[in-house]
Order: sequence, then structure tokens, then C-alpha cells
Amino acid sequence: MGKHSGSEAPEELLAIHTILDLIRVEGPITRSFICERSGYSRSTVSLNCDKLLASGLVVEEGIIYRNEKGKRTKLKINGNAGLIIGIELGATSCEIGLCDLSAKILDFNSSPVDLSQGPDPILAQIYHRIDKMISLPSISKMKLLGICMGLPSSVDYQRGTAIYPAFMPGWHQYPVREILQARYGCPVFIDNEVNTMALGEYSLGTERKYKNLLFVKAGTGIGAGIIVNGEIYRGQTGFAGNIGHIQMEGHNEICQCGKKGCLEAIASGSAIARRAKQFISNGGSQLLREVYEKTGEITAREVKYAADHGDTACSQIIREAGTILGELIGRIVIFFDPSIVIIGGGLTGFGPSYLSFIRDGVLSQSKPWINPDFEVKESTFGNKSGVIGSVMLCIKELVSSGAILRVFMSQIQK
Amino acid sequence: MGKHSGSEAPEELLAIHTILDLIRVEGPITRSFICERSGYSRSTVSLNCDKLLASGLVVEEGIIYRNEKGKRTKLKINGNAGLIIGIELGATSCEIGLCDLSAKILDFNSSPVDLSQGPDPILAQIYHRIDKMISLPSISKMKLLGICMGLPSSVDYQRGTAIYPAFMPGWHQYPVREILQARYGCPVFIDNEVNTMALGEYSLGTERKYKNLLFVKAGTGIGAGIIVNGEIYRGQTGFAGNIGHIQMEGHNEICQCGKKGCLEAIASGSAIARRAKQFISNGGSQLLREVYEKTGEITAREVKYAADHGDTACSQIIREAGTILGELIGRIVIFFDPSIVIIGGGLTGFGPSYLSFIRDGVLSQSKPWINPDFEVKESTFGNKSGVIGSVMLCIKELVSSGAILRVFMSQIQK
Repeated sequence: MGKHSGSEAPEELLAIHTILDLIRVEGPITRSFICERSGYSRSTVSLNCDKLLASGLVVEEGIIYRNEKGKRTKLKINGNAGLIIGIELGATSCEIGLCDLSAKILDFNSSPVDLSQGPDPILAQIYHRIDKMISLPSISKMKLLGICMGLPSSVDYQRGTAIYPAFMPGWHQYPVREILQARYGCPVFIDNEVNTMALGEYSLGTERKYKNLLFVKAGTGIGAGIIVNGEIYRGQTGFAGNIGHIQMEGHNEICQCGKKGCLEAIASGSAIARRAKQFISNGGSQLLREVYEKTGEITAREVKYAADHGDTACSQIIREAGTILGELIGRIVIFFDPSIVIIGGGLTGFGPSYLSFIRDGVLSQSKPWINPDFEVKESTFGNKSGVIGSVMLCIKELVSSGAILRVFMSQIQK
Repeated sequence: MGKHSGSEAPEELLAIHTILDLIRVEGPITRSFICERSGYSRSTVSLNCDKLLASGLVVEEGIIYRNEKGKRTKLKINGNAGLIIGIELGATSCEIGLCDLSAKILDFNSSPVDLSQGPDPILAQIYHRIDKMISLPSISKMKLLGICMGLPSSVDYQRGTAIYPAFMPGWHQYPVREILQARYGCPVFIDNEVNTMALGEYSLGTERKYKNLLFVKAGTGIGAGIIVNGEIYRGQTGFAGNIGHIQMEGHNEICQCGKKGCLEAIASGSAIARRAKQFISNGGSQLLREVYEKTGEITAREVKYAADHGDTACSQIIREAGTILGELIGRIVIFFDPSIVIIGGGLTGFGPSYLSFIRDGVLSQSKPWINPDFEVKESTFGNKSGVIGSVMLCIKELVSSGAILRVFMSQIQK
């Protein structure tokens, strides 16, 4: 399918469409920059920028200079033109953010979820929180333009459904996009949560200069999001980046997918907790046993607590998990040659030493086949990474599909 | 850099450019199809198709129907409009093909090379063969429009040079593109040989329906070419697909890159020959010893001969090399989720059983994270794969850079 297929748009619409997308990706930008990059003439660019300004979808920012011939300004998307909701459904919690069109977070909410309940109770919980957010008096006059939700699963992006989710009973091909669209009357997009995070880092982080980026989420599970030439790469089936299920030689831990030795069964949050519990039963860590007796649970958080308080067994677990994850990423780096690898997800809470273990693992495998500028960095957005990524994906889709132009069309055509 | 940056092309040029590129990628196609896919109006498409037909760069193919209103035909690039030379420089041989603009091979030549000599004698050998090809009376009136050369090395595509080639003394940053451009007076493109092969399979094989494709060349060395959304993916540094240097756990063979346990040190043609020689010295294969005493050398060819004649040690070497290559590809498939993996290179000469070992290795690692339609196939083009790929890349670049339009411009502007 071509960029403009199906619409049979007249050439005027093609031009305004191209110009708006450039402003979205590169804005704030001058009209001269738009001419240079789009190939359109000065008069076409000028005419269409005026239409976009009149519609309210684009605004001028600052005045670069002013002389007798007029002023020169930059154009950008008007943040106040509408609202976007970004949702990150993770394995154990759900983050929802209400944002403006510049991806500024106006309201944010994080609460625990139990995915074993199936989709209906989760969606009820999400409706409740969205409804509360959009009824706030301060924003209730702004139009909700779109919703994007990231799921901890492979996704059929065209259909807007999860496919074969590992630990989400009832979600396989459940029509979550259709349901949300019907309820909120706006376009809805469903993607893998790590894909949206990767796009968020690319679009809004300091990383926009890097067109090829790998985002790795290390949390309850492990997955990667891939940005190729500034776009999310989903693969042929929607499975791309599924690194948690790459088998590691010499390992026999059973993964919840049923296979043996998957990365996720060795280095994820669940795997770390399982290893830590072994240390409690075999007496490998006295401190962890005490913590367990007090709290009644062992998660990555308790392992961090014990490691921070001098427990060498727990420090060792964290080191090994970081190293093995890093080594696998390093092999992928040889194949994919990204300019940057960004690490996010709950396990980054282990702190800087965990990131060092990962970085050392990556470099041990990938040297010398990397650029001197190659970096391994922690996510810029912490637990808001999924929400920001979803919002950025939503804005991108609304612009590139032409949906947002249709909403603002009445103003443009006057 | 945008698609049209730098040219400041007027809008007419932008339209003809877009239409020509659609004809190149999708042709033969109707004018209606061009309207639908480009978003341009019927009159714009019609006007520009007439210009392209008048220039001789595009021709009509067949008549779909003819009625009182006129006839309906399909448009495609005119194969006879000019010549392209494709070159594949491999580790041990160099293939050169003279093709027309439809990538039909008019002349083809393969001869051994010794890369240890450095670039000058290799280029002299290439000049000699090209000069002979283009002086053939039958084609000497056709214009040479471009040359593309694949190198067995990472490449700085923008500069047109090899970077850090493992076994090509003197080639690092040697300005091979500039030298060829100066000599032949046409645009020249330099890429990694496996990248061009991947593009050739994508563009001309039965695989054009698959936008995401992995091509693996298993020969003296091992490398992969990556097609993402129909385009060569080179990575940030030009190193992408460098899978021969992914380290395999539990292996300690020294690679010529200096690292231990690289795939190339275990499963490539050189590695197979080295393992076979060990069987000769330790008495593991009587037949191989006899072959060696007769021929004085052991390469993958002799290993195949012995395996075909019942030598179990040699069969075992081939099985292990195929399996370990397949298992690594299978892990990459989980990350990259291509719709197809194509195997090319000299080791495919081992025959169908070798391909089965690879396929079994791939599936053992990648199931169930693959599409039901996923396939592992052998290259369509055999030893012409590199030449065809280079020619396809050259045509693509000539069209998308606008270079070919400039050549045919005088006709178009009349």
C-alpha cells in the first residue's frame, strides 16, 4: 500500500499532507527548510503553510528576524490543537497519560493490573481512568483526537489486536482497537509496548539524530523495539524484537513459552526473582531470607535491597543478569548496527552498576564492529516512556494517514 | 536528507520523478495504478507518462484493451535505453555482467582473483574485462549509464569505499568509486556484495511480495544482506548483517578478525576446509587423504566429493556447518522476523542436504515465533546473484537520485 493509496487525493491535498508531515517530524522549521526538503516551490509551501496556520493545527514559533520585507518564523504543530491519550499496558502495571499534541503530559496515572483476569476487567479499569481524565474542567473543551495503547505482546498492527500473548488469557485477537474506537469516537492504534517506547525515545529523546535505534525493555519480561530509518520496524508478522525468546546456549531453564534457555527465563525480572528464591531455599543468602520473612515476597525490588546492603549472592544475580542480557544485545548489534542502544524497563531500577554490566556485555561481543560514537544509554523517560511513545505514534499515524487533516479540514478549505 | 533535498526541483520534476520510480519498482503498471499509488491526478500522470515515453526511458507493454475511447497499456522501463555493469568481487573470484536496463544479462564473465595483491591489479583486471564487453559491436552504440560493484567487506556507501576489510590489504578507504567514475564517465555505486545480492533476490526473484528479507551468503566467509521494506538496510556504520563475526558460545576457534569463536571461524568454507585438513592429519578420513594426495588441495569442493562418496567424517562436517549456521540464523529470525531467508554463496554447492541442515537449524530456534508462510530457500540466481543485485541497485539509484532523468532530460524537455 502506497503512502496515499485509497485516498485518491488531489495534488493540493498531497502537498499539504507532505508539508504537515515534515513539520511534525522536523518542526519547528522555516518555510525555506520545507521548500528544500519537500521539493515544493516557495509559492506552494507558502500557500499551504497559510492554510495550516489558519486551521489552527500549526502555529508559528518565535521570530528569527524581521525586516522591511516581513518576518521569518518557524512552524510547528500546535500543542493546544487537541488531546491524545497514550496507554502502556505492562505485565504488572498500566500507565495512562493524557497529553496535548506536543506530547506534553497533562495528566498521568499508574496503577497495578492483573492480566490473568482477561481483557474485560482491564478495559473497564482503563475506561474509568480515561473518563476521569477527559472530564477535567481545564481540558474538557479540547477535542480527543486519538488513542494509542501499547501491549506486552506481539501485535497485529493492521487489525489492532494482540497475537499469541504469552501471559494474557483472552487477549489473542481480542478486538481492542475496535472496542476503544467505538467507545471514544476517535482513531485508536494498538502496538507492542516496546515498539512505542522505542519510537518515543527516537522522537523526543536526544536521539533523533540516530535513525537506527534499538530499545530494550528489561522488566518482568524482556523485549526489544527496533527503529529503522526513523520508523518502527515490526517485521513480517509483528514478532520483530522478540529477543526474550532467543535461546541461550548452555542454559536449560524452562521459559513460560515452553522452550528451554530463553533469555527471558534467565535474565528477566521473573527469572531474577526465581533465582533469588533458590538462594533462600538453599541458604545462599541470609539477608534475602530475612527480607522474605518480613515482606512475604521476593521480586527484583527485594533483590536490589539485599544487594545494596552488601549481599554478595544478590549482587551476583544482578551482575549475571546484566551481563548475559548485554552479551545477547552485543550479538544483535553486530547484525543490526544501530547507533545507539537504549535500556528501559523496571530492571533499570537496579541502578548504574546494572547498566554497566549490560554495557560491558554489549561491547565484549560487538567490538570492533561498532561506530566509535556507538552508545548504550538508559531511557530518558523512565516509567513515562510507554505513554510518551504511544502518544508520539498516535500523532504520527494521525498525520500520515490524513485523519488529522480531515478533522481540521473545514477550517483549511475555507 | 530528504528524498529531493539539494535539487530544489520544481514541482513538475517532482511528479515525473515519483512516477518514474513507481514504474521502476512496480512496472509494468497502468496509468490508473500510478494515479492510485502516487496520489497524482489523471492529467498529471498522463502528461508525465507521455514525457517519459517520448524520452525513450519508458515503453508501453501490451494492450490490455482497446475501445472507441482509446487503448489501455502498461508502462515499464525500456530495457534498451542503456547499459549497466554489475560487478561482484568475492573472496576468490570476480563476476562481471553487462546488462540492459531491464537487468537482462548481455554478457557475463567470471574469473579468479587474488585479493592479497591490493586494489590496483584487481582493478586493472576489471578494466580489461569491462573494456572488452562494452566494445562489442552489437552494443557499442548503447550508452553506459552506470556501474555498481559489490565488495566482500563493510562499505562506506556514501563515500564508495571499503572500510576495515578483513582480508583485502590496501582497500580500506581506497577511492574505488571515484576511480571508476573518472574512467567510465558514469555514476558508480559501491556496496557490500551481500547487500546487492539481497536486493537482487528481492527485486527480481519470486520474493518481491516479501518486503523484509534476509539473504545469507555462505562461501569463503559468511555474511548477511538485509532488506527492510524493500530497501537495503546498511546500519549506522555500514556493518549491518556482519553475522560471520557473531561469537558462538562454547567455541574457541580463532577467527581471522582476531576474535574467538566467530561463526565464520566455524561454519564458513575456510573453516570447513580447515576442519577437513585436521581429519587428514589425524587419520579421520581415508578418502579425503587420497583426494588430497591426488589434487594437492582441500577446499569445500573436495569435502563435498568425499561426502558424496560415502565419507562419514566429511558428511558430518557439512552437517555441523549447516546446522550451526541455521541455528544462528534462527536466532536472528526471532529478532528480525523476516518473511523469507534466502541462502546463497558457494557452499550451496553442497546440495539439498546442506540446505536441509540449515533449514532445520533455523526452525529449531525460531519456532513458534514465525509466520506459517515463513520459508528458507536457496538463491534463485546462483553465481549471477551478485551481478544481478548490483545492476538492480544501480538502476534504483540512477532513478531515485534523478541522474537518469537528467541523462534523458533533453528529450523530456522538448
